[in-house]
Amino acid sequence: MPPDRNDLPTSADVFSGAQNIAGTIHRTPLIRSQQLDRLSGANVWFKCEHMQKVGAFKARGAANALSRLPEGTVAVATHSSGNHGAALAWAAAARGLPCTVVMPETAPRAKRAAVEGYGAVIVPCGPSLAERESTLQAVVRQTGAHVVPPYDDSRIIAGQGTVALEIVQQCREQGFTPDVILAPVGGGGLLAGIGLAMAALAPDMLVIGAEPAGADDAQRSLRGGVHITGQKPQTIADGLRTTLGRRNYTVIRRTVRDIVTVSENGIVRAMRLLWTRTKQLVEPSAAVGFAAVLEHGARFRNKHIAIVLTGGNLDLDRVSGLLATVGE
Amino acid sequence: MPPDRNDLPTSADVFSGAQNIAGTIHRTPLIRSQQLDRLSGANVWFKCEHMQKVGAFKARGAANALSRLPEGTVAVATHSSGNHGAALAWAAAARGLPCTVVMPETAPRAKRAAVEGYGAVIVPCGPSLAERESTLQAVVRQTGAHVVPPYDDSRIIAGQGTVALEIVQQCREQGFTPDVILAPVGGGGLLAGIGLAMAALAPDMLVIGAEPAGADDAQRSLRGGVHITGQKPQTIADGLRTTLGRRNYTVIRRTVRDIVTVSENGIVRAMRLLWTRTKQLVEPSAAVGFAAVLEHGARFRNKHIAIVLTGGNLDLDRVSGLLATVGE
Repeated sequence: MPPDRNDLPTSADVFSGAQNIAGTIHRTPLIRSQQLDRLSGANVWFKCEHMQKVGAFKARGAANALSRLPEGTVAVATHSSGNHGAALAWAAAARGLPCTVVMPETAPRAKRAAVEGYGAVIVPCGPSLAERESTLQAVVRQTGAHVVPPYDDSRIIAGQGTVALEIVQQCREQGFTPDVILAPVGGGGLLAGIGLAMAALAPDMLVIGAEPAGADDAQRSLRGGVHITGQKPQTIADGLRTTLGRRNYTVIRRTVRDIVTVSENGIVRAMRLLWTRTKQLVEPSAAVGFAAVLEHGARFRNKHIAIVLTGGNLDLDRVSGLLATVGE
Repeated sequence: MPPDRNDLPTSADVFSGAQNIAGTIHRTPLIRSQQLDRLSGANVWFKCEHMQKVGAFKARGAANALSRLPEGTVAVATHSSGNHGAALAWAAAARGLPCTVVMPETAPRAKRAAVEGYGAVIVPCGPSLAERESTLQAVVRQTGAHVVPPYDDSRIIAGQGTVALEIVQQCREQGFTPDVILAPVGGGGLLAGIGLAMAALAPDMLVIGAEPAGADDAQRSLRGGVHITGQKPQTIADGLRTTLGRRNYTVIRRTVRDIVTVSENGIVRAMRLLWTRTKQLVEPSAAVGFAAVLEHGARFRNKHIAIVLTGGNLDLDRVSGLLATVGE
């Protein structure tokens, strides 16, 4: 029986999620850079989810959700700023299911091309959550598709959380114990999943979220104790222009220690450092975790920190424009 | 006793080189991409030497050479278009030795910055081999430095060849046997080293070099049986604008099956595919091996191929200009 999507996910769902998706996804590398350690004053390990299937951790949640579809599902649909759409299209194609992705017109071309490349149909919409959801409802009425939401879904949260199980295992193999796991937060699927995993596996390890100051609804929700949903996000980190989900908020309140914010310049600087020092072509959203270490130096000094590099899908012709906006 | 530099290196020098540099260099990942397999019609593994110390395989040769310095060496010097200079500067700094690097004015700024970052002195010169060597001789007269040549040196060849030992080991771990090892050739240190390693370790495996058509002295030398030294190289692959060395030519004749050439468009296309599909920020020279698989499709179809991604040091602000020159 598939779990009731209105239920909250549990730590056990993360462990079973890892079983569901084993063999479907990559065990991505965990890497480090002495230069970035020196620059940041911390000991940083990077989990390379930009090397995951479809170039983002989102493959985990999509693969898990598609292993748990209601009987009789004939098609799937979602809304997504990019990587979840590509992940769902990829997972659906592997099962021969038609897939429709509602995408804001502001999504990077590389992400649109990926969704189309996996054979899904793209339906354009405006950038707000309300516009995404109303367009998605119209698609469902027309196609009868089963909706796999991008983050506010127990199967998705549990799937994304599997990355934390690998991080803990790989840290053990490399002989270190992280003090902190840092992950970007947009809709909160990844951060909630990591929170659940760590609550069961390593409750002493701090789980901390990082988000752009221009999309700080998760920080304000967590610190204020009230779920904020009305923000219009403004950030270069296109993967984080989403609003914290309801289930995600509830799980994060229980399992995540804090959420810190970073500046736009900080994101570009961190991205450039990751490119030039680790030679990893990560997208802006993926640089937010390391940007937090750089911008909140005192808090993270000398700590052992595992950071999730969440994705690597970006429009290369925008690269030099991005880099020109801020010095090293 | 350090070996006589006028001697040719042997397979045994590669094995002892691996001992000399163990713990100093990284064991870099060996990765693959289903998308690039589909696109190329081959089964391709990429050895990530752009993730090596100093961002290039050159760290191997430099570390090996500096473990074998003549007694009484007070300083080291070299000429280099970039990565060997950075590698020597890095290895010299680790031993507290002063280092001078003669660099052509056409070298990428990122590579100049790396050399300076490791504390070496840069002396500029013209781009030809004759200009490099005459400037280096002047440096030696002034400083008494011991010269560690960029490629025509037994210690360097043996050090670069250690990458092949790792490739064979990692392929075994991943349960496959390559038919071919493909590596770019400029001065020929890497290719000669790989040839020596494979001659001892896996003589059935084909070792094949790849070079830009605008710098095809190695192919013409190998195919014609006469060492060609007078070419003026023209290529975007700045790391391969060198002339095949004497020792390198001799070793390559004995151990390398063939050298193929690739077009400039082919290099940019391969580089773009590596960036977008594997998310690895490799420099133009590093894309030459995969460009060969794409441009010589029939020859490599369905083969199991290990390709060395040689480095990841490039000027990011040149990126969009490079990509604009050719479509995907």
